[in-house]
Amino acid sequence: MSLIGTTDVKRVAVVGSGTIGASWAAWFLARGLAVNASDPAPAGETFVRDFVRKAWPQLEALGQARGTLDEALARLRFTADPAESCRDADMVQENAPERLDIKRAVLAQIDAALPAERVICSSTSGLTPSDLQAGLANPERLVVAHPFNPPHLIPLVEIVGGSRTTPEAVAWALDFYNHHGKRAIHVRKEVPGHIANRLQAALWREAAHLVASGVASVKDVDIAITEGPGIRWALMGPHLTFHLAGGEQGIEHFARHLGPAMTGWWKDLGSPVIDEPLTQLLAEGIREEVSGHSVGELAAERDRLLIELLRTVKSQDASRLW
Amino acid sequence: MSLIGTTDVKRVAVVGSGTIGASWAAWFLARGLAVNASDPAPAGETFVRDFVRKAWPQLEALGQARGTLDEALARLRFTADPAESCRDADMVQENAPERLDIKRAVLAQIDAALPAERVICSSTSGLTPSDLQAGLANPERLVVAHPFNPPHLIPLVEIVGGSRTTPEAVAWALDFYNHHGKRAIHVRKEVPGHIANRLQAALWREAAHLVASGVASVKDVDIAITEGPGIRWALMGPHLTFHLAGGEQGIEHFARHLGPAMTGWWKDLGSPVIDEPLTQLLAEGIREEVSGHSVGELAAERDRLLIELLRTVKSQDASRLW
Repeated sequence: MSLIGTTDVKRVAVVGSGTIGASWAAWFLARGLAVNASDPAPAGETFVRDFVRKAWPQLEALGQARGTLDEALARLRFTADPAESCRDADMVQENAPERLDIKRAVLAQIDAALPAERVICSSTSGLTPSDLQAGLANPERLVVAHPFNPPHLIPLVEIVGGSRTTPEAVAWALDFYNHHGKRAIHVRKEVPGHIANRLQAALWREAAHLVASGVASVKDVDIAITEGPGIRWALMGPHLTFHLAGGEQGIEHFARHLGPAMTGWWKDLGSPVIDEPLTQLLAEGIREEVSGHSVGELAAERDRLLIELLRTVKSQDASRLW
Repeated sequence: MSLIGTTDVKRVAVVGSGTIGASWAAWFLARGLAVNASDPAPAGETFVRDFVRKAWPQLEALGQARGTLDEALARLRFTADPAESCRDADMVQENAPERLDIKRAVLAQIDAALPAERVICSSTSGLTPSDLQAGLANPERLVVAHPFNPPHLIPLVEIVGGSRTTPEAVAWALDFYNHHGKRAIHVRKEVPGHIANRLQAALWREAAHLVASGVASVKDVDIAITEGPGIRWALMGPHLTFHLAGGEQGIEHFARHLGPAMTGWWKDLGSPVIDEPLTQLLAEGIREEVSGHSVGELAAERDRLLIELLRTVKSQDASRLW
C-alpha cells in the first residue's frame, strides 16, 4: 500500500459533526487544512460553524491557530452526505454514533467514496478496529484514532490498528497527528477502552469505592487527586512518578522494595457496583461539590483553566528531560 | 479535651528530619512558625538546614514564604532528642521511619514531653492511627496527617483519626493545616494507603498491566496520562470529570447510561504481579523514556515544572466554581 505523504494532506473529511466531530473540525482548520464536514442532522452545518467560532479564540490562546477565523470558515464545506464529503478528501476522521451497525454502514460509504492511498481514522472509544473493518472493501486502511475530549484542546490521540490494518497505515496515522502537534501513541493490541479510558476507569473504580464505603466524601476524594497526585500527573505519568519515588535506583528499587506494600494496597482496592443507591450518593456528593453551578458553566470554566494549564505545560516542553 | 487554638500555634516540633521531615520544616518556617527539628542522625542538622535553603526560593516562587530565609533559619532549632524538641512545642509533626515498633517508641517519648492540649500529627503513609496510639498515655490527641511528596510543595494533607482519637483532635488538624494554606481532607475510616495512595495504586496497577501485557510501552502509557486525563486531573478529580462527561444531567446520566460500559472496562482491567521480569520490562521502558537522565536531574526538573504548574493553578483558585 502506497499512501499519500502525511504532509501532503490538504483536505480532511470529518464524517459525523456532533461534539467530537465539530471539535476535530476546529482543530484541522486551525492546522491550516481544508475540512469537508458532514452530518445527517438538519442543524448540522450551524452546529459545526458555531463550534468553530467558539473554539477559535481557544486555539489562538494555545498558539495553534493559523490565519484568521474568517479564513478558516472559508475552508469549511458542509454536506449531509458522507460519501460526498470524502470524494476529494486526503484523509477521513469518522465520528458516527458508537454503534457497530451504524459505524459499519457509514464506513462502507466512506470507503467506497474515498480515493485510494488515503487512510480512514475512526474516533471510536468503545469499538475495535477489527470489528469496524470487517466487510470493508479496503480494510487495510482503517485505523482507530481516538481523541480525548475536547479533541481541539487535549493533545492525546490513541492509534490502534485492526487485524487487517497494514503497519503502514498505523505508522501513517501516528506520523500525521504528531506532525500536526498532537501526541499520538501506539496501542499495540485491541483492548476495551484502548489505554487512557482504561486508566480513567481504574482510577474511578477506587474513587467510587471510597465514597461507597464511607471513607470520604465525593468532594474530598476529588481534592485528594487535584491537590495531590493529579498535579504531578499533568507532568509525569504513573511509571515515571514511581521511578522518582524509587530514589537513585529508580523503578527497580521501587518495584523490589515498595512492590510488596503496593501489592497489599492492590488487594484491598474495592469493586463497587454502580447501582441506584451509589448513583444517588455520588449525585449528592457532586451537588455539595459544585454548589449550584450547571454542567455548562463548569465545562466552560474547565476549558478556560485547561487552556491556562496547557499554555504553562507546553511552554516548558522544550526543556523537558522526558 | 480543650485544645490550643489553631491560630495560637507558634512553635512546631518536627520529629524525624529526613526528606519528609525537612520538607515539613521548610513549610512550617515559611508559614512564619518556629520549628524545633530533631533527628538521631549525626548530620541531621546540616541536612535540614540545607533542605530549607534549597526549598526557600521554591516557597518564595509560590508566594508562600513569609520574611527572609535568614529570619526563617533563625527560627529553626535542632536537637538529637525528640523529647527535648517537644517540651515547648504547640504541635508535633512526627516523621520517624515507617516501622510500627520505631514509631511507637518515638510517639511515647513525644507524648510524655509534649504539654497538654497539644495535638500529635503523624506523617505515616502505611500505618493506622489506631495502631500508633495503642500504648500512649494520651491516645486521644494522636491523628495521622499524611502529606504528599514533597510536603512543602504539594497542598494535600490526609487527616485520619484512630479509634481512640477525639473528634476535636481531627477537627483541630483539619483546621490547622487549612488555616495555613494546605488542602486537608478527612479520611473517615482507617484503610490501607489512606486515599491518595490507594488511587495512585489503582492507576499504576492498570498502567503496569498494559505494559506487562504488551499493549503499550512504558513511555506511551505515561504519555496517555500526561497528554490526556492527567492534564484535567490537575483541575478536576475523577468524580467531577465524569459529572461533566454526563452532559446536562451530569453524574446521574453518566452512571445510568455510561455505567455499563465502565463496568465492562472494570472487568477487563488487569492484575499484574510485580516479579523480576516485569521489573526489568519497566526498567527498560523507563530507560527509553528518560534517555540517560538521573533521578536527581529528573526530580529537580519535576519540582521546577511543578512550581510553574502550581502557580498557574493556584492563581485561578479564586474564580474556581468547584
